[in-house]
Amino acid sequence: MAHIELSKELPGITGPLAFSPETASPLLSLAEILLRGPNTLTSAEREMIATYVSSQNDCCFCQLSHGAAAAEHLGGDYALIDRLKQNFETAEISEKMKALLAVAGKVQKGGKQVTAADIARAREQGATDKEIHDTVLIAAAFCMYNRYVDGLGTWQPSDPEQYREMGKRLAHEGYKRRESRPVEAA
Amino acid sequence: MAHIELSKELPGITGPLAFSPETASPLLSLAEILLRGPNTLTSAEREMIATYVSSQNDCCFCQLSHGAAAAEHLGGDYALIDRLKQNFETAEISEKMKALLAVAGKVQKGGKQVTAADIARAREQGATDKEIHDTVLIAAAFCMYNRYVDGLGTWQPSDPEQYREMGKRLAHEGYKRRESRPVEAA
Repeated sequence: MAHIELSKELPGITGPLAFSPETASPLLSLAEILLRGPNTLTSAEREMIATYVSSQNDCCFCQLSHGAAAAEHLGGDYALIDRLKQNFETAEISEKMKALLAVAGKVQKGGKQVTAADIARAREQGATDKEIHDTVLIAAAFCMYNRYVDGLGTWQPSDPEQYREMGKRLAHEGYKRRESRPVEAA
Repeated sequence: MAHIELSKELPGITGPLAFSPETASPLLSLAEILLRGPNTLTSAEREMIATYVSSQNDCCFCQLSHGAAAAEHLGGDYALIDRLKQNFETAEISEKMKALLAVAGKVQKGGKQVTAADIARAREQGATDKEIHDTVLIAAAFCMYNRYVDGLGTWQPSDPEQYREMGKRLAHEGYKRRESRPVEAA
């Protein structure tokens, strides 16, 4: 049971977003810009960063919903997302993405964990200032979303299959609030 | 030196906010609503939560800027803010605030650390669902802001005196972007 009274039908972050519409607005805007705004990193790559950080924070809802969004952007490659969560260094992703995920993993542990060597590795693989900035902010933001979801004790389905439709909507429609149905995952 | 190229004159989060105006907008809106929006918790109390979490994350810029804002809301009681960071359980704050800071401290460690007993303690001291929600989200948000500031290796003055003017501006003018001068701390 959640720590505060949330709608029973709304899983994960969607409960708190509905509980507090005034904070939902900037939280959803931030996710929309970070994950789907114009960027030299693809949405698949940015959703991978979100998924990896959420898995390191052990947040079931966020890692499965953003993992489904990432897989959807990749034409349904759920197996790659699973391998990336297990060990991104051996997953079939670019060397630049491996370097950026290493930065994201440091941010998850704490901002001061990021070293000059981590940044140098990313630059050697062609990462730009904006890509490094966005990687740090996506990782930092998911340290917030994950804590929001778990800190309120929200209800989270544990079956990955239940996140597939959500992943499609997040990938194709994004993180803006919808008037006609409950707010979506951030 | 920061990990990416940021303006030399802008300390802490103000550098990254100027680097990335499109993400600055929701980041500042979120801080404004959480710390200065209509609420049964005073801005002083909400700035205390931000300060405590930032001190637990060892983020110099955020703990000194928000500590200065909290002190300013309290008529300049910087000593109370220092005691609160050292041990909030013995500081001269309400029992409800102690219970909420205990929740915030758990969120800082990880969302799943918050227990039913932590929530029960807060409720016994009169905390409402909204106050618990806002405490969790403020704590989670500062786990983001702190990582954003430190993960990019930003320049941060270490002298608390240098944050006093900033604290006054944050307390009285808030977190909206200013056109006429650099963006302020979030």
